[in-house]
Amino acid sequence: MQFHYSNRIASLKASAIREILKFTADPTVISFAAGNPAPEAFPVEDVRRITAEILSEEPISALQYSLTEGYPALRDALKKRMKDVYSIGMDFDELVIVSGAQQGVELSAKALCNEGDVVICEAPSFVGALNAFRSFGAKLVGVEMEQDGINISLLEKALKENPNARMMYLIPNFQNPSGITMSFEKRKAVYELAQRYDIVILEDNPYGDLRFEGEDVPAIKTMDTDGRVIYCGSYSKILSPGLRVGYLCGHKDIIGKVIVGKQAGDVHTNILAQMICERFMTQCDLDRHIAGLKEIYKKKSSLMLHELDKHFNPKVTYTRPQGGLFIWGTLPKDCDMMAFCREAVQRKVAVVPGTAFTAQETDPTQSFRMNFSTPTDEQIIQGVEILGALTKEFC
Amino acid sequence: MQFHYSNRIASLKASAIREILKFTADPTVISFAAGNPAPEAFPVEDVRRITAEILSEEPISALQYSLTEGYPALRDALKKRMKDVYSIGMDFDELVIVSGAQQGVELSAKALCNEGDVVICEAPSFVGALNAFRSFGAKLVGVEMEQDGINISLLEKALKENPNARMMYLIPNFQNPSGITMSFEKRKAVYELAQRYDIVILEDNPYGDLRFEGEDVPAIKTMDTDGRVIYCGSYSKILSPGLRVGYLCGHKDIIGKVIVGKQAGDVHTNILAQMICERFMTQCDLDRHIAGLKEIYKKKSSLMLHELDKHFNPKVTYTRPQGGLFIWGTLPKDCDMMAFCREAVQRKVAVVPGTAFTAQETDPTQSFRMNFSTPTDEQIIQGVEILGALTKEFC
Repeated sequence: MQFHYSNRIASLKASAIREILKFTADPTVISFAAGNPAPEAFPVEDVRRITAEILSEEPISALQYSLTEGYPALRDALKKRMKDVYSIGMDFDELVIVSGAQQGVELSAKALCNEGDVVICEAPSFVGALNAFRSFGAKLVGVEMEQDGINISLLEKALKENPNARMMYLIPNFQNPSGITMSFEKRKAVYELAQRYDIVILEDNPYGDLRFEGEDVPAIKTMDTDGRVIYCGSYSKILSPGLRVGYLCGHKDIIGKVIVGKQAGDVHTNILAQMICERFMTQCDLDRHIAGLKEIYKKKSSLMLHELDKHFNPKVTYTRPQGGLFIWGTLPKDCDMMAFCREAVQRKVAVVPGTAFTAQETDPTQSFRMNFSTPTDEQIIQGVEILGALTKEFC
Repeated sequence: MQFHYSNRIASLKASAIREILKFTADPTVISFAAGNPAPEAFPVEDVRRITAEILSEEPISALQYSLTEGYPALRDALKKRMKDVYSIGMDFDELVIVSGAQQGVELSAKALCNEGDVVICEAPSFVGALNAFRSFGAKLVGVEMEQDGINISLLEKALKENPNARMMYLIPNFQNPSGITMSFEKRKAVYELAQRYDIVILEDNPYGDLRFEGEDVPAIKTMDTDGRVIYCGSYSKILSPGLRVGYLCGHKDIIGKVIVGKQAGDVHTNILAQMICERFMTQCDLDRHIAGLKEIYKKKSSLMLHELDKHFNPKVTYTRPQGGLFIWGTLPKDCDMMAFCREAVQRKVAVVPGTAFTAQETDPTQSFRMNFSTPTDEQIIQGVEILGALTKEFC
């Protein structure tokens, strides 16, 4: 038979990253294309012990249906940590557990965006989020980034030109893919613009805990006296992405709608995973674990930057992130970026072409994303050497 | 600020069942309102051992990002079982793991239904699925049930009258909420109508393994020479609903679109849970476990029917299911069903009013759903006695 798909899904393509990830199943390919935590970053012993305890002490609770809004003890622990550590959470705020931050973004779009509504995002931005917006027929408007975050005057221009903009989607810390962190001044300016143009901000912060250099910058959500910021957090980078546990903190009215959407989406998030997160937060030393992660990623980031400095053609620029998992490289104007990425894969090094991260696939970009958390040190050294040689041939 | 929600979410209400479930958090209320497996139905020892083995043998695989389409070993085990046990799976079929059957329904709707498209469903039908369709702006057209399944001539009428019908949503085995099983003849007739009107069938079969009386009836999917049937299965009723693992088997083109939608939805289903399902299927005696479940539910169903026969006003009718978890009661025409349900809760017995399961909330119904899997035997005896007294006062 001839199948007829919905407009929303017909227009959506498989993520270029995940397609490349499949390709990197080839064990001879050095992958800088993923965004996976380092294998040594998993607290395996703790998870093993906690999980055994849960299945011994409260097995039925861990296997039975649970509440859509999430495991109450986890929600309480998270609210407390958000308040104590990040100064997040007004009286009007509520918190819902979601199946990874990806679902947090998807449900925010589901609750707030009609087909044709505009979502303003950083350019470049995280492909998974962009696809979530596209999957509800939202129109993406990208606003250029500078070294200290989104360009504020271009953002205002975009807001003026798009009165049907429903939401700004921002990743203020160690942005994916650029690695850029938004300055405190820009965060204030962004919030003021959101007030002036009466728009919701979706603040995605999966990497915020992974700062290995410089000083923490308060989240936009800390300034949120209006309830217009939805803050999206995740356990994927500090505990495990395979467990698929994230959370949204926002005005209780919005969170109420998100819960209704989640009920129709997957009823609730895997409860065993939620219980693991809760016990990990309350019974283990989370701060010490995070300190260990920072050490791992600082070392890996420094190594990759050191090798880039050594091998890359000086005409190629790249960001120097203060945290997170990614470095963003940019080829000079006259270079064919797609050909570069294709040739890199031929030589057994995978990077993600920048087109994966643009608001429109046809937007021009000379950039590509490199990840330093997944490869081993040896792979970083070897892979950057290969890429470096390529930059000298290509540019 | 004034929040603006999407049309799809603004029109969606929290499920009446889950609202009542919250109410039943009161431990003095006997709940016939849930659809939870019996606590004694969980293979706790097996899950405990398997989980420990996974976290000892392959902890990184259990915690790291995984593939959107699902854990390969689980997909293989499922394809084999579907073929061997249920005769399901043509050459053109593919299988994707989803975060519970609810997500299977939601992603099918996401892939196939535009806003305003019609989904034809049984009347009554499962509220969670109806809400998934509503959450994409689909219009629901309900078709009356008979004792052997959907009314075929009314189904044809609905197909004629709704040329923009995209999908039929059917639960052929021990339907939720009615407990009705569709006869083989009707399954054939339904498939022929789907061919004649060139429409997709979403066959939801969460309870199929839980037959405790009568003979198995082949799934509609076994007749699917065209690739127009999407079959939706689940581990929720045979292993654990808290793990949130289900699957869709359908034409590879449709499944490909579902995978793209899932990537934007939650990246992938919790991988530890998928590994638990795989080991439970391949290392434990699944058929023996299912035989044990049938014993449990046969006993509970028989007990509830016995008590209903004893206490209910003969003017109240109810179905006698051959499997599954639910009995569907119907009050005589002159009785106020909503008042009955409200008074029942006052007397500490919760049932779900039939309005939760109608295509339109304003559709008239005299029915209510009773679940026998969750309450203890004592609660079944006590609860039915209270409801029985009420039927004699009300009708």
